[in-house]
Amino acid sequence: MTDSLPQFHGIIAYPVTPFDASGAVDEAALRRLIDRLIGDGAHAIAPLGSTGESAYLSDDEWQRVAAISIEQVRKRVPVIVGVSDLTTEGAAARARFADQRGGDAVMLLPVSYWKLSEAEIHAHVKAVAHATRTPVMLYNNPATSGVDMSPESIVRMVNAIDNVTMVKESSGDIAQMTDLVAGTPDQFNVLAGSATTFYASLCVGATGGILALACVLPEACVRLFKLTRDGRHDEAAALQRRLVPVAKLVGSLHGVPGLKAALRLVDCDAGLPRPPLAPVSEAVMASLREVLVSFEEVALV
Amino acid sequence: MTDSLPQFHGIIAYPVTPFDASGAVDEAALRRLIDRLIGDGAHAIAPLGSTGESAYLSDDEWQRVAAISIEQVRKRVPVIVGVSDLTTEGAAARARFADQRGGDAVMLLPVSYWKLSEAEIHAHVKAVAHATRTPVMLYNNPATSGVDMSPESIVRMVNAIDNVTMVKESSGDIAQMTDLVAGTPDQFNVLAGSATTFYASLCVGATGGILALACVLPEACVRLFKLTRDGRHDEAAALQRRLVPVAKLVGSLHGVPGLKAALRLVDCDAGLPRPPLAPVSEAVMASLREVLVSFEEVALV
Amino acid sequence: MTDSLPQFHGIIAYPVTPFDASGAVDEAALRRLIDRLIGDGAHAIAPLGSTGESAYLSDDEWQRVAAISIEQVRKRVPVIVGVSDLTTEGAAARARFADQRGGDAVMLLPVSYWKLSEAEIHAHVKAVAHATRTPVMLYNNPATSGVDMSPESIVRMVNAIDNVTMVKESSGDIAQMTDLVAGTPDQFNVLAGSATTFYASLCVGATGGILALACVLPEACVRLFKLTRDGRHDEAAALQRRLVPVAKLVGSLHGVPGLKAALRLVDCDAGLPRPPLAPVSEAVMASLREVLVSFEEVALV
Amino acid sequence: MTDSLPQFHGIIAYPVTPFDASGAVDEAALRRLIDRLIGDGAHAIAPLGSTGESAYLSDDEWQRVAAISIEQVRKRVPVIVGVSDLTTEGAAARARFADQRGGDAVMLLPVSYWKLSEAEIHAHVKAVAHATRTPVMLYNNPATSGVDMSPESIVRMVNAIDNVTMVKESSGDIAQMTDLVAGTPDQFNVLAGSATTFYASLCVGATGGILALACVLPEACVRLFKLTRDGRHDEAAALQRRLVPVAKLVGSLHGVPGLKAALRLVDCDAGLPRPPLAPVSEAVMASLREVLVSFEEVALV
Repeated sequence: MTDSLPQFHGIIAYPVTPFDASGAVDEAALRRLIDRLIGDGAHAIAPLGSTGESAYLSDDEWQRVAAISIEQVRKRVPVIVGVSDLTTEGAAARARFADQRGGDAVMLLPVSYWKLSEAEIHAHVKAVAHATRTPVMLYNNPATSGVDMSPESIVRMVNAIDNVTMVKESSGDIAQMTDLVAGTPDQFNVLAGSATTFYASLCVGATGGILALACVLPEACVRLFKLTRDGRHDEAAALQRRLVPVAKLVGSLHGVPGLKAALRLVDCDAGLPRPPLAPVSEAVMASLREVLVSFEEVALV
Repeated sequence: MTDSLPQFHGIIAYPVTPFDASGAVDEAALRRLIDRLIGDGAHAIAPLGSTGESAYLSDDEWQRVAAISIEQVRKRVPVIVGVSDLTTEGAAARARFADQRGGDAVMLLPVSYWKLSEAEIHAHVKAVAHATRTPVMLYNNPATSGVDMSPESIVRMVNAIDNVTMVKESSGDIAQMTDLVAGTPDQFNVLAGSATTFYASLCVGATGGILALACVLPEACVRLFKLTRDGRHDEAAALQRRLVPVAKLVGSLHGVPGLKAALRLVDCDAGLPRPPLAPVSEAVMASLREVLVSFEEVALV
Repeated sequence: MTDSLPQFHGIIAYPVTPFDASGAVDEAALRRLIDRLIGDGAHAIAPLGSTGESAYLSDDEWQRVAAISIEQVRKRVPVIVGVSDLTTEGAAARARFADQRGGDAVMLLPVSYWKLSEAEIHAHVKAVAHATRTPVMLYNNPATSGVDMSPESIVRMVNAIDNVTMVKESSGDIAQMTDLVAGTPDQFNVLAGSATTFYASLCVGATGGILALACVLPEACVRLFKLTRDGRHDEAAALQRRLVPVAKLVGSLHGVPGLKAALRLVDCDAGLPRPPLAPVSEAVMASLREVLVSFEEVALV
Repeated sequence: MTDSLPQFHGIIAYPVTPFDASGAVDEAALRRLIDRLIGDGAHAIAPLGSTGESAYLSDDEWQRVAAISIEQVRKRVPVIVGVSDLTTEGAAARARFADQRGGDAVMLLPVSYWKLSEAEIHAHVKAVAHATRTPVMLYNNPATSGVDMSPESIVRMVNAIDNVTMVKESSGDIAQMTDLVAGTPDQFNVLAGSATTFYASLCVGATGGILALACVLPEACVRLFKLTRDGRHDEAAALQRRLVPVAKLVGSLHGVPGLKAALRLVDCDAGLPRPPLAPVSEAVMASLREVLVSFEEVALV
């Protein structure tokens, strides 16, 4: 890791979208969550990603969550707004909105229904990037988008589109991340999207991570980042090993339902996920409680 | 195949949604396409599926295409309306709309952003089925939905939810289709979603197919269905073999862009696909022309 | 299916290699099994394939099983000897041996440790084919070989190597099989390797099947072949549906251990599989008993 | 990484098996290669693995290479002999032989023809471990064995079988490796099998790597290990990034053929791979030359 940190670095918290008992967006809870994340040391906030259930929001809801999030952050840290949409026009409109409301960057996942070719992805990213004056962060997450952008294709977009300046790599493949760091200009940022390989990502050159886990254990995530930056590798590796069981339960294994369940346990209730997503079972809730307790740093409600 | 045909059988044409030069829904072209398909012998019409680019339409556009399609068919054949949506509430609202406007059935694909568990899919299907008085056709298509519903889980839904009476199986896996036919009640309909295995699907017990290929070669598809129903298996197998190269180009290989390109070649222009989908290259267009000419039954423009 | 049947057609039984209590090849049981299969109507015998555990035999054992099988068949039906080996030299030596001992054809699966390129497979097949005067049957089985030969690459080998005249397609992909039938000369034989899609394979043009299931239910397999050949499709489809549960248990789900367990149940004990393969559990044995009893045509011991 | 290094640590070179022009094992070249690897700083030697083409050797050849390798090393460093075989009896015999000839440990990959269940793998490993007094290193490499052993199943074997004391993890999945380090006793060794993620593996707790790349660039591999051990992480990360292009060409992309081609370029000719493996094309040879030259540390012949 370099000493001079770029604008987007460290722990970029990836908030959920809280819903109230009727299933509507819970504005008060959203504002509280953002304040809590900044208070716990998050270096930036990235609303309306996968974790923000943006795929399940109406256009009106999406605009409301974007506007509230930017406003509530009040320029204390940068805001990176997720603008992914199935159509190019829809994603471009969201990028325009985020820019106009004062977002600092936009994040774009090439979600697809029909599989997209590399040329289709390139044109899509280009059109969305041209709709905003902010930096654009590409988001590679084959598990949800159905598309694995190769390091080569990402490098081509970085070179061809001026404001594509960051990538969030969520495949968890460290060889692919190393390739990305090696193949892109020094001022380009690579950020980790997988908490189970966050420390390894930092080692090979990532400048930070956009982590759902930071909603549940923000201080531990910030500590892992700082330990690595300070060269305290043995402590960082040990902390990463302790974080893996939690990261699996609130990430790959149970997604947003797992994360919203964990938030309830750490006294930061954000309501239930939106159907078809369903709350986790009692058994999963018990496992979550167990790994959080054994992590020994959280007081559960 | 049984002698007494069920309500939903034979060639269920799977129309595209035509767009005009500005990218808006082209109502006139949509009405012409529907008339052409019925004129060429389609036994039913299934608008707003994958092929109908329903994933890329706004809610307003979706309602307009549904209303126009039902109206234009004018009860000449049954209409099966695709109502898939990422949220349960959205899909239920579409099912309600289709029912109110006079649709004869709805088709439901459990599209997902976050992977859905079997229980989540079951609850989703149940909620949507309860929103309509029409029969519901489950749609299994792992390639676009990211979810492969097992024959066992489909049978469980059929048994538990009254108006789930059909399944469209698009995995192309004939063993799985055989399992479905064997495991469901006699009055339950299994329909093929893959044109490359349509004849084999009919052999193992499917009552018809919902085929994008029927937009391009409606008469050949109808003929294949009738040959099989009439026990003329050698002719059917020979026709299926001749259809495979066309089916691949307008289906698995090039999706909606391939299909819309082929429609232009057979003088049934439906405009371009909506971005991020992009028109096929000149090379693919040449291949399409070649396989259609060698099929020897279409006059190309 | 054509009326004039080629030399290799119908039910090609795929025997196991029986082992005695000490784990050695059980010659007497092997001879009994072959006589039983021919007595029950098998149109040919194919020893030393996947089902014959040839991957687990020493070279000496392989030669002994090949010699005994050819001798015991006594020209009553054709013998197709599996000659697959990890090295080209080893497979060629086996092909030479099978030819010299009077085998009627050899079957070759491009097994691999390191993944093979298409050019490496082509050269391997060519070298083995040149080592024998008999016809060569290519064997495509991605599940065990780790390699899925495309229809195009198979057609290239058929055109380039004179005595490659058959393919056993075990992927179970009916679209791929249709492609193979369409793309190869009329005198070329395509044979099914998957019992769950055997009837569909015959419909799209296969001339028979090399089926492990034929060890357990030889008469039913022969009946399915004849019903299809005689155009009695409804009866054939019904029989196929009843065979699927058995075919899954002795095939994809439990491999050789499932097959050897089923053989014990039908009073044709062939001993245990060779370690690391282990006998099936009591629970699987109970399932096997249940599906065989419900098939209603076997008297179990 | 801990300060007190275990017996098996650092760069465990993974030699090829040299063949002469006739295709026979080239004893002189094998002895030269081993001397060169030890001279360049390898901490141990691991003959007869995937890279050693052991899957393509006869039993006699395998014994000869094992005996020569152990003898030539002359106790200068530990020798870990690959004993994998398709049968349990075969692998156990090899383990016994390696032990009797003075090997320091054996490495065991659960290679399979039919897919093995977890119970079958457990019994296989146990039987082989009981055949030797040396430590046993499990080898997880789904790409060649067709089996991905989960961290949980590996931990179960470590706990149940006394002399299973190491694992070589070649999946390249750093989350899985972190799980293994976290889940096993402190004295258990986890070793990396993938050169593209070697540095990240060391960071998360691996004690070394068994690397084919060490045949081509032994000094660079040793340097990467030492830099990491000495806490010089920025230099280590930079070296890892420079090694990735070479590691891909001689590893995942071109396997043994790529490695033997690279060995020729660095003046350490080990002959050609054994058919069906074929020498790389001229184009691949040119790429290899280019990445090795741009690595700037090798003088090519």
